[in-house]
Amino acid sequence: MLAVTILGNNSAVPAFDRHPTSQVVTIDGNNLLMDCGEGTQIQMINYKIRRSKISHIFISHLHGDHYFGLVGLINSFSLLSHQQELHVFGPSPLQEIIELQLKVADTTLTYPLHFHTISGEALLVDNEKFMVKCFRTNHRIECYGFVFTEKRQPRKLDAEKIKEYDIPFSFYDQLKNGEDYITKDGRIIKNDWVTIEATKGKTYAFCADTKYDETIIPHIQNADMIYHETTYHDNLRERAEARFHSTTRQAAMIAKKANVKKLLIGHFSSKYATLEEFEQEAREVFPDSELALEGVAYKV
Amino acid sequence: MLAVTILGNNSAVPAFDRHPTSQVVTIDGNNLLMDCGEGTQIQMINYKIRRSKISHIFISHLHGDHYFGLVGLINSFSLLSHQQELHVFGPSPLQEIIELQLKVADTTLTYPLHFHTISGEALLVDNEKFMVKCFRTNHRIECYGFVFTEKRQPRKLDAEKIKEYDIPFSFYDQLKNGEDYITKDGRIIKNDWVTIEATKGKTYAFCADTKYDETIIPHIQNADMIYHETTYHDNLRERAEARFHSTTRQAAMIAKKANVKKLLIGHFSSKYATLEEFEQEAREVFPDSELALEGVAYKV
Repeated sequence: MLAVTILGNNSAVPAFDRHPTSQVVTIDGNNLLMDCGEGTQIQMINYKIRRSKISHIFISHLHGDHYFGLVGLINSFSLLSHQQELHVFGPSPLQEIIELQLKVADTTLTYPLHFHTISGEALLVDNEKFMVKCFRTNHRIECYGFVFTEKRQPRKLDAEKIKEYDIPFSFYDQLKNGEDYITKDGRIIKNDWVTIEATKGKTYAFCADTKYDETIIPHIQNADMIYHETTYHDNLRERAEARFHSTTRQAAMIAKKANVKKLLIGHFSSKYATLEEFEQEAREVFPDSELALEGVAYKV
Repeated sequence: MLAVTILGNNSAVPAFDRHPTSQVVTIDGNNLLMDCGEGTQIQMINYKIRRSKISHIFISHLHGDHYFGLVGLINSFSLLSHQQELHVFGPSPLQEIIELQLKVADTTLTYPLHFHTISGEALLVDNEKFMVKCFRTNHRIECYGFVFTEKRQPRKLDAEKIKEYDIPFSFYDQLKNGEDYITKDGRIIKNDWVTIEATKGKTYAFCADTKYDETIIPHIQNADMIYHETTYHDNLRERAEARFHSTTRQAAMIAKKANVKKLLIGHFSSKYATLEEFEQEAREVFPDSELALEGVAYKV
């Protein structure tokens, strides 16, 4: 199961009870944090996200509204006696920023913290359950988008066939992993006689901050869901261009051209008190557009 | 008028809807920010503190719960096109931390930001309206308390005498400042014939994070109000000592020995869900003790 919970959907300055960017990507019980604006740890408490489940944090770029909550979270993990490894991925100066702040506080963390500097297009994580890749977006400073892909799901058991071949309960997990079963008298029961192929793993792409740029399309093509920023309504295209941001219709155009299934929009400018018009404008171009609302979990 | 508004009263990790340390000290229409834990700018919005009125920020020490909101606030001032000078006072590495984060974001502030490194006991600000001094407290890392003093108030006009001597309205401000009036025919009307001495300026002392240490007493002696941390109930004296923090009865003992008028207590450990007992314990030693509650303005 792949889902995204929105902790912050606003751009630079907090306003109208909207918070800076942060999302929790949940894949098969793992919580991955995507960006970490100021106050993210408090949003996690508000929305009952278990902080102890966070194993990986990805920072798209070093504008404050995307990472000013990171050192607080790293620090709190330690105060809460977190033990498991934490992997942080971000642009190169991030490590210096965090280490400097831990040093001046004379902090020794209770857990191993691993920094991974990202640069260019790369495969960042590849384990049994999921894969994370990054790609460059077109922003004022070095900035990355991320693609989260569930690994192939376990095969599904065919209850009738399992009964027919009398396969013991203790072997079910191995069946789900595709193994053949060998009976006591040496007969081979082929895996595909008793299981059904699972659905393909889903893909979610976070397109970070970016101006309209079709070169990101190959990275997000055919994704089940993408998040693309819409800092402005479409009448402010020039301002969006000048500030390396996107409008509603531009985000929707990227979703359409990339042939994705669903578009989440966010990073709303603090100049807008309400959000309805963002959704309306995006839907004119790409009907499966939806506002990224704080506290809501979107199943991919 | 001197008042203190509490934005955060919790220690290290946010919990029970309590936030890390931050207070707004209002003196004669100036807002001075005392510490700036993560989320301070959001607390300012919640409690309708005008961010644009902040002219000075004082950071007691470089544990994250006292300053992780600072760079976000500095950044937001700029995004909100703040123009007036901002003075930040704190231990020496703070400047490097802030400048590094502004540099990697390629940020040019819209206003002049002045860093002032503090070290040891010093007079930090001395202007027409107020004075701020700092002193060392006894914490795990370099840490400072601050004393805020209103300057002498303007003299009060004696309405009857003013009428009797026929002093024009246009001279009232000069009278309040202590000037004598000279009539058209050259007679001197002494200031103290027509005005009354104002009440003395009030004093508020913020004692930061500290273990029980009587050497701070000379700095806060006879203050109208002090804030002293009470991280723990009094049964955890050993833990407090080991972590360079104080208990309820210790804070109250400092208030009593320093002969202050009122004690505000805060920096409550996240292990406590409720706060009543903090106040009860402090009052057993010093009856004029009060909880520092978020969103409440305490007039000194």
